[in-house]
Amino acid sequence: MARITPRSQNQAKWYQEVVLQAELADYGPVRGTIVYRPYGYAIWELIQAGLNKRIKSAGVENAYFPLFIPYSFLEKEKQHVQGFAPELALVTHGGGKKLEEPLVVRPTSETIMYHSFAKWIQSYNDLPLMINQWNNVVRWEKRTLPFIRGLEFLWQEGHTAHATKAEADKEVMRAVDMYHDFVRDQLALYSVVGYKTETEKFSGADYTTTFEILLKDGKALQSGTSHMLGQNFSRSFKIQFLDKDGKLRYVWQTSWGMSTRIIGALILAHGDDKGLRLPPKIAPIQVVIVPIIKGDPTAVVEKCRKIKDQLAGWGIRVKLDVSDKTPGYKFNYWEVKGVPLRIEVGERELKAREVVVYRRDKGERLKLAVSEKAINGLLDDVQASLLKEHRDFSRRNIRQASSFEEMKKIIKEDKGFVKVFYKDNPEAETKIKEETGATARCIPLEYKDQTGVCFYSRQKGGRVTLFAKAY
Amino acid sequence: MARITPRSQNQAKWYQEVVLQAELADYGPVRGTIVYRPYGYAIWELIQAGLNKRIKSAGVENAYFPLFIPYSFLEKEKQHVQGFAPELALVTHGGGKKLEEPLVVRPTSETIMYHSFAKWIQSYNDLPLMINQWNNVVRWEKRTLPFIRGLEFLWQEGHTAHATKAEADKEVMRAVDMYHDFVRDQLALYSVVGYKTETEKFSGADYTTTFEILLKDGKALQSGTSHMLGQNFSRSFKIQFLDKDGKLRYVWQTSWGMSTRIIGALILAHGDDKGLRLPPKIAPIQVVIVPIIKGDPTAVVEKCRKIKDQLAGWGIRVKLDVSDKTPGYKFNYWEVKGVPLRIEVGERELKAREVVVYRRDKGERLKLAVSEKAINGLLDDVQASLLKEHRDFSRRNIRQASSFEEMKKIIKEDKGFVKVFYKDNPEAETKIKEETGATARCIPLEYKDQTGVCFYSRQKGGRVTLFAKAY
Repeated sequence: MARITPRSQNQAKWYQEVVLQAELADYGPVRGTIVYRPYGYAIWELIQAGLNKRIKSAGVENAYFPLFIPYSFLEKEKQHVQGFAPELALVTHGGGKKLEEPLVVRPTSETIMYHSFAKWIQSYNDLPLMINQWNNVVRWEKRTLPFIRGLEFLWQEGHTAHATKAEADKEVMRAVDMYHDFVRDQLALYSVVGYKTETEKFSGADYTTTFEILLKDGKALQSGTSHMLGQNFSRSFKIQFLDKDGKLRYVWQTSWGMSTRIIGALILAHGDDKGLRLPPKIAPIQVVIVPIIKGDPTAVVEKCRKIKDQLAGWGIRVKLDVSDKTPGYKFNYWEVKGVPLRIEVGERELKAREVVVYRRDKGERLKLAVSEKAINGLLDDVQASLLKEHRDFSRRNIRQASSFEEMKKIIKEDKGFVKVFYKDNPEAETKIKEETGATARCIPLEYKDQTGVCFYSRQKGGRVTLFAKAY
Repeated sequence: MARITPRSQNQAKWYQEVVLQAELADYGPVRGTIVYRPYGYAIWELIQAGLNKRIKSAGVENAYFPLFIPYSFLEKEKQHVQGFAPELALVTHGGGKKLEEPLVVRPTSETIMYHSFAKWIQSYNDLPLMINQWNNVVRWEKRTLPFIRGLEFLWQEGHTAHATKAEADKEVMRAVDMYHDFVRDQLALYSVVGYKTETEKFSGADYTTTFEILLKDGKALQSGTSHMLGQNFSRSFKIQFLDKDGKLRYVWQTSWGMSTRIIGALILAHGDDKGLRLPPKIAPIQVVIVPIIKGDPTAVVEKCRKIKDQLAGWGIRVKLDVSDKTPGYKFNYWEVKGVPLRIEVGERELKAREVVVYRRDKGERLKLAVSEKAINGLLDDVQASLLKEHRDFSRRNIRQASSFEEMKKIIKEDKGFVKVFYKDNPEAETKIKEETGATARCIPLEYKDQTGVCFYSRQKGGRVTLFAKAY
């Protein structure tokens, strides 16, 4: 295994090499598809487990809806079909025959789920209905990049129906806050939560909230969204309930999703010249033990096994690498894979109380007596350090601009987020994108009530908005 | 909610009503598809969790491969494409354009996985390679029945590659034994493990093993299979490794899968006139508490909550039903859903140490002081009883026949398995099926070395084979 191309030299090449050499994924035979290899999929399983806990504790239940959606379903909500039509994969033949109506391979499940919701919801007693599913979806994307944008990806999509607008508004915020907290606590990622502008909102939503993550190259990544669907779908799909006052009303709906794209965020936010750096809470292997063998391996390997069993007993995800590769090869291999801690055990460590521990995040070696407290303490410290580093980086890279000229200069020279007052206007946004390559990422919640003169149109009533180049 | 049609009266109607009224599933808009509702999906999640543990502890890693397979991949293995061609769903358009080559929506993943295996496997160091995936697959079935046979179903498919035939043979058996043990221990289902005949084996396998479950109506259900693929796919996909002796060899492969069909087995093996009967280990709700309210509900509901918190604290999956329905309605509702135990709490129970507990499996009421030991003991007893009942039933319904006349009589009058000596012969099997409706279910492992005169051809060398009508 050759050393990977340093990120500082060529990020595109670095990214591809990290994905392949860290064995996160491989390219599939169909353009734009990837194979999630065991190491990459294990990260996804840890994300699923953590997020599932939060989803279920909010009273949302998991279910599974069919992959195939009749084309006519998508057409029921005008904006929705307009948004998705260019990206659809169509099944036209089944069982050797041409189908009467083509089937859409789900790009998202609003329409097929709400067809069922209309059957299941009759009265206020049936509300709120809160359902989530973990599945695969297909969008025929032109430009693809492993994890970030693919023909097929894995995600969860939550869909809820409520009796009142207020309840639905609240659920939209609960979901986006859940994502924000989850990626902070588990993935050591800082994100900015806000509203999408008209141009960037979901096709079929009244409004969309998002959490945006700034990556090391200064580009932003939309990492998950939570939509207020209002009564747009309930009117198209006739999802009505008999309210307490005896009146028939349409439900208020939300939908929210986070996908395997977040693994792309992990790579691009934390990775360094040497490869991945994984936060311990989401690392399939938290500690790797590498024996440094000079003469007879027996005693060293035995000591390694002892440490491995100890760590496993403390609930740490540990791997002992006894393959016949050299220590140097192994160091490089596990560094590319981003394993948070490496314990090195050689002849010297047989007598000493302490072992050498290498911290992947800081690239530092230290000596340590192995104990539950010491190892867990170090893992916690790595987790906290990665978050601090990413938060500091993100905050440092939010720069204010009050004119279009200033904004352009920042996008060109500094990258990162540019914070401006902006009056939402789809035509203006198209022009800004054409001229700068940047798009409106979000209207941060924390500034949602502040207004000022729009940096572009010079009109009053602009809202605080972050622009950035994005993936 | 109306009472369901008793099973003894009309099983087809009963099955449909149980599926819908127990809220396990609903019909999807596309023929042959179903929606896995939260209650049904929760059973699947419990199955996944339990089986995943066994799969991982065998050293098999989870991964995820793309949904879409180029048509040409399937054609690489002749038997494989012949077997699956009539059942394929084809994507012909993507992103608004006609595709150059149609894509198959995976009916199973051998071909796409082995395309990757050929890249990943270079030397004996890379073996064994053992990968599993949980996903959705599509088969364009003509006759469909919820859970049992559908256009789309959920499953896991394990795929392994080994250096030697002996290792692969062993893995085939490990997998089928794992299924057999799992459904016995968790789902309280007795199954017969054996080989498939030539007619019934997997398209592309050297041989197939299966575990067959006898349902209450006397029909058998193939509930999962484990295949020895030999070198059929490794030759077509050029999966070669450099062996220790420096020679290039083709790997030996296995694949094995169990699907949501097993939920159909649960329903049809354990269900009774009143609906589902779920084994506690796989029941999303193990205990339901129903307050019996006459006057002021406060005290009774408080007592119920206390019991609920106690049970939850002991790790029991418990539900308190405080909806405004009548106790009679609730009893029926939770009986259809097959909840193993129901605790009834009324005014009387406020003073008494004991509560009334209803056992769904035996339809018996008993009095009991609530304690961790008492409730867990009862749940264990329900689990054991259901298994015993199903095992006794299955064994009682294996009948021997030494001639075709005898066999026909049993199939017609008694149903169940007919145990015969049978000399494997695809033409004979077609005729037997035409005349009796029964098929060869398996050659049980426990009798694999016994031979005798074939019940059909009267030739020597027949092997012990079970025939039955099957789903």
